[in-house]
Amino acid sequence: MLLEGSCFTLEGSPIQAAGVPPASPYRVGRKCMAVNLSDLAAMAAIPRAAVISVGLPRRGGRELAEELYRGARERADQFGVAIVGGDTNTWDGPLVVSVAVLGQPGPGGVIRRSGARAGDWLMVTGPLGGSIQGRHLDFLPRVREALDLASQSAIHAMIDLSDGLAMDLPRLCAESGVGAVIERGLVPCHEGVSFEGAIGDGEDYELLLAVSPEDGAKLAGKAIRIGQVVEAQGAWLDEVGNPLPRLGWEHSFS
Amino acid sequence: MLLEGSCFTLEGSPIQAAGVPPASPYRVGRKCMAVNLSDLAAMAAIPRAAVISVGLPRRGGRELAEELYRGARERADQFGVAIVGGDTNTWDGPLVVSVAVLGQPGPGGVIRRSGARAGDWLMVTGPLGGSIQGRHLDFLPRVREALDLASQSAIHAMIDLSDGLAMDLPRLCAESGVGAVIERGLVPCHEGVSFEGAIGDGEDYELLLAVSPEDGAKLAGKAIRIGQVVEAQGAWLDEVGNPLPRLGWEHSFS
Repeated sequence: MLLEGSCFTLEGSPIQAAGVPPASPYRVGRKCMAVNLSDLAAMAAIPRAAVISVGLPRRGGRELAEELYRGARERADQFGVAIVGGDTNTWDGPLVVSVAVLGQPGPGGVIRRSGARAGDWLMVTGPLGGSIQGRHLDFLPRVREALDLASQSAIHAMIDLSDGLAMDLPRLCAESGVGAVIERGLVPCHEGVSFEGAIGDGEDYELLLAVSPEDGAKLAGKAIRIGQVVEAQGAWLDEVGNPLPRLGWEHSFS
Repeated sequence: MLLEGSCFTLEGSPIQAAGVPPASPYRVGRKCMAVNLSDLAAMAAIPRAAVISVGLPRRGGRELAEELYRGARERADQFGVAIVGGDTNTWDGPLVVSVAVLGQPGPGGVIRRSGARAGDWLMVTGPLGGSIQGRHLDFLPRVREALDLASQSAIHAMIDLSDGLAMDLPRLCAESGVGAVIERGLVPCHEGVSFEGAIGDGEDYELLLAVSPEDGAKLAGKAIRIGQVVEAQGAWLDEVGNPLPRLGWEHSFS
């Protein structure tokens, strides 16, 4: 669920948030669909259908809805996904958008976060960090890449990097009951982005996967090795015992 | 999508709205699932699976989520529906809940709003009005009733009464390209509720259906005749030319 003023801000809206540049409803709509497609990509699944529900601010809600839908529809069409339902409501609050994408298992079956094994290579599908410059809205979910990787290798575990490598890697490790060593020099950073930005900025929507070294070697040109899975539980930098900085986006309650 | 302060208010929350008595998160969760099941009932479809997404207020969000889910799960279980996905987010705003239910066609195929014909009987599945006393939260969606009706008759058109008969009847008529005459003396009202309340209060979640008189006669004891479909477009009270009062809940933009 994407929430105005928290996950995004809209051009011309009275609701703005520090550090979140405002975007058009069209780009927000595209993103809402894309983040859900990315969840399917993370399982190397084939997306088929989507439902989209909105809570619209009363003022200007109709135009907003049309532009949102145009963006959502564009991304859905790009991946052969039919928008099959959902609902619309209005209120005096900010814009709220909820999308759910339904799909079916891809060629490698359903891939989870829980299958990484000590000795596996950890790989990512592209450079990380600095997404707030625009990629956080305009990114293409790695649906096709995931299906391609799954057809060429036995992926042991996979996750999409939505909250930053430093936050998402420990999730994959915890689900798999393993640890991981990331090699600082191997992590691909977007131009002008520091290592800390690459692991902490979040909203990359690249995929992080664990595969055997033999399979990893086959994925040259498609995924980049950034480290390996180890038995010692934890997320480590360069060597076990040296913790990866705790960065990234944590969903919190108070 | 159900929006705190607009569609419902929560006990103990700082967000209250005039005329909306506060409810527990458990009852709100039940309602969120029930209104979506009611949409399937309106098509005489068989609900199978649901996705549920929430935008949680940061303060107390975890307990809130657990109680919401308990309510949603109860209604889902009652109708054999599996909760198969969704997502969770937190923000500084009010509670937002989005549910989508997936299903398959029932014994009469998929029933739409668009098949009513002049001469049809209009029937409802139960008494109307006064739902704000608690039925708006606790109602049972008419899923089984709809499947039963569809197995005993050829339902031409159907809609669930979420915004009030006076608002939902014109929708069914517009989709079918027909009009309707409602007989004041036939509309079943909940105890202590006026005719105006019965057609305008909304949130009844009873079903309104159009069937041939022959089929309607077969549904005695299961649905109550309240009027008939006519060619003259419009929603009429007792006779064509006398408009049904414009009451009920309209989703509006400004």
